[in-house]
Amino acid sequence: MIVPATRIVGLTTHDIRFPTSRDLDGSDAMNPDPDYSAAYVVITTEDGRQGHGFAFTIGRGNDVQTAAIGALEQYVIGQDAEDVAGIYHAMINDSQLRWLGPEKGVMHMAISAVANALWDLKAKRYGKPLWLLLAEMTPEQLVEMIDFRYLSDALTRDEALELLRKGEQGKAERIADLRANGYPAYTTSPGWLGYDDDKLRRLCKEALDQGFTQIKLKVGADLQDDIRRFATAREVCGPDFPIAIDANQRWDVDSAIEWVGALAPYHPHWVEEPTSPDDVLGHAAIARGISPIRVATGEHVQNRIVFKQLLQAGAISFLQIDSARVGGVNENLAILLLAAKFGIPVCPHAGGVGLCELVQHLAMFDYVGVSGSLDGRVIEYVDHLHEHFVDPVVIKGGRYLAPSLPGFSAEMHPESIAAHVFPGGEVWRDQ
Amino acid sequence: MIVPATRIVGLTTHDIRFPTSRDLDGSDAMNPDPDYSAAYVVITTEDGRQGHGFAFTIGRGNDVQTAAIGALEQYVIGQDAEDVAGIYHAMINDSQLRWLGPEKGVMHMAISAVANALWDLKAKRYGKPLWLLLAEMTPEQLVEMIDFRYLSDALTRDEALELLRKGEQGKAERIADLRANGYPAYTTSPGWLGYDDDKLRRLCKEALDQGFTQIKLKVGADLQDDIRRFATAREVCGPDFPIAIDANQRWDVDSAIEWVGALAPYHPHWVEEPTSPDDVLGHAAIARGISPIRVATGEHVQNRIVFKQLLQAGAISFLQIDSARVGGVNENLAILLLAAKFGIPVCPHAGGVGLCELVQHLAMFDYVGVSGSLDGRVIEYVDHLHEHFVDPVVIKGGRYLAPSLPGFSAEMHPESIAAHVFPGGEVWRDQ
Repeated sequence: MIVPATRIVGLTTHDIRFPTSRDLDGSDAMNPDPDYSAAYVVITTEDGRQGHGFAFTIGRGNDVQTAAIGALEQYVIGQDAEDVAGIYHAMINDSQLRWLGPEKGVMHMAISAVANALWDLKAKRYGKPLWLLLAEMTPEQLVEMIDFRYLSDALTRDEALELLRKGEQGKAERIADLRANGYPAYTTSPGWLGYDDDKLRRLCKEALDQGFTQIKLKVGADLQDDIRRFATAREVCGPDFPIAIDANQRWDVDSAIEWVGALAPYHPHWVEEPTSPDDVLGHAAIARGISPIRVATGEHVQNRIVFKQLLQAGAISFLQIDSARVGGVNENLAILLLAAKFGIPVCPHAGGVGLCELVQHLAMFDYVGVSGSLDGRVIEYVDHLHEHFVDPVVIKGGRYLAPSLPGFSAEMHPESIAAHVFPGGEVWRDQ
Repeated sequence: MIVPATRIVGLTTHDIRFPTSRDLDGSDAMNPDPDYSAAYVVITTEDGRQGHGFAFTIGRGNDVQTAAIGALEQYVIGQDAEDVAGIYHAMINDSQLRWLGPEKGVMHMAISAVANALWDLKAKRYGKPLWLLLAEMTPEQLVEMIDFRYLSDALTRDEALELLRKGEQGKAERIADLRANGYPAYTTSPGWLGYDDDKLRRLCKEALDQGFTQIKLKVGADLQDDIRRFATAREVCGPDFPIAIDANQRWDVDSAIEWVGALAPYHPHWVEEPTSPDDVLGHAAIARGISPIRVATGEHVQNRIVFKQLLQAGAISFLQIDSARVGGVNENLAILLLAAKFGIPVCPHAGGVGLCELVQHLAMFDYVGVSGSLDGRVIEYVDHLHEHFVDPVVIKGGRYLAPSLPGFSAEMHPESIAAHVFPGGEVWRDQ
């Protein structure tokens, strides 16, 4: 079933934007009016196969992000599509491109999009969903995908191999469990700041009815509003139901500790992004200041080096990988292994455009091949924009069902791409 | 002499690249073949005045960096040129653009270029060199320029005001001293990895003859070579002459400690960029591991939040600001104040394209208006590409003379821009 290696002959990009700000979907304390967007890339091989990938942004700047992906064409065209590791290491270690980060921001997200498209292509060629492709790779093949630079004080290549070998025990049973029962999800849909209390109450009830075992509320814009909204959600969900809160980087250290203190009576399951994603020591200070309430972060953490430090500093109790910000699947493999080394559960960030579709594969691989556990683990779910994807996520009883189609679930319908291209697509032309 | 406020009516960009890789100027352990480049911006007002700014890169990706600067046009056009603070805060706090960082990488360097062009324009309108314009602003005017978000656990607005008020004592004397004697410089020219031992020896001797009081050697590619090169430099310069070493992020934590240990007999004045600029805890571990040898970093530190942590963690003994990586003059004001609060000397990174021209103004303002001291402070100097600037740095007796022309010394000759535009300029057309 495996398609022979073929040369990559094309890379095309699309600046795709959804006018989500019109309905205040996705509004939070730092992002009042996002237009969910994808800097989208399609890689084509000489035998006509395609891999799809994208960086997620929230509107302005998506053109710059798209241009950055286009600038990576030279690393991809003419290469063997099988050589994901080689292309990835070449992109990451290009000394001239490194200057634009290193390994952060627009250029790194561009590498993420291209790397993920390469993985989509590879999984399609192997006829497997990505999570299963990863689960069937050997530990040696997996560590080849990782750049261990700057990690050795926390995780060596040998330790990574050891963790992956340990992850092989019971793998078949976990694959069977995943296929039968899926992976637990939580929903952020009730908690956007732009919604009124009636909508919050209704959406909380729907989340319970749908079988979700956790919800999340956006906080940080107005304390009295947050207290009222949290009390409302707690009332609907009951005293023991996990309700996380998410400040989207709104606070400084002291204000985080104070604000969370005021919400403590409602028992937040975790406090997400209390401050700058760059502030390792700040997160550690907040974690100490709000204990036993726990800290989660990751969706804006720029790379494995910052995750390493968050773990070393004891700053987080939940690690939230993002599928399209760090260096794609490759760097997320390193981050899953770091989390396993430190015994911290991975609870992925999702939502946006297609982030649920991508990140489910990484969480599922974490379960079957790395952590071996579902304890304390949930994947975020937001009910936005899935209809634009060829292989959308399937949620049943509050759980992500394991994808079965080949690939990384990254591919958008051609009509969706055409309609949302900015600024020429039909949804934008009428503005 | 002050020109009335005028509206900004134009923003144009240029992708400018110098073929420096042909001579191995600028080669180090991480950057073997840089083509020094500037993503260059010119802002024009309705009365025909111009402000110039740029982001420095080392070649590939300069097109992406230039596009990112162009994407900021909407924040600048139609604004009052006097309102540097307003434009800066609008760019930094745009929620959609923040997603592309936040405050790091390509988008942040673009903001830096635009902010610096606004300062160049303002200083020209006021008829003063930037360092003096800053020195003559009130503490209240200066703190208006700063985004204090995420700093309050280390530096509040009130503490910043207090530091700036303290900096007013003796300012007139320091301005006179600076005009008479300039600011001490060190040179990196002898130390590039691409040079043979004879050239190293000759350039070390020239540095001494020219009156520099410190040199710097690039290290980290090959230990035996480094030992031989350091021994050679030490022999030429004598036992007490400060010789810094610079690994350009080459090492992990343990290898940094080992490598520096092997070079310790030659007494490095500081060890620069031993590891990833993102690794605060790694720098702190290295600082403990190589004490009493001291750590310096900063040219790739992405923003004030990482500098804050490097200071909080006791990870650095010298703070190396860069004029064009963080959010321009505005964010560098915050960083100078953080350094002053923690009592750490600022020794700027320079070289590249025009970084000497820019950063001299910031170091000079630090001396006259913030730290009030030259103790342990030196500005890097590299003898590259100054001929392309309208107001190039002047080095005399190993010291930067204080610029006297109005502006930020950021303006390149039109002929230099035309000749080096990539890929159409004449230096590239013949390749």
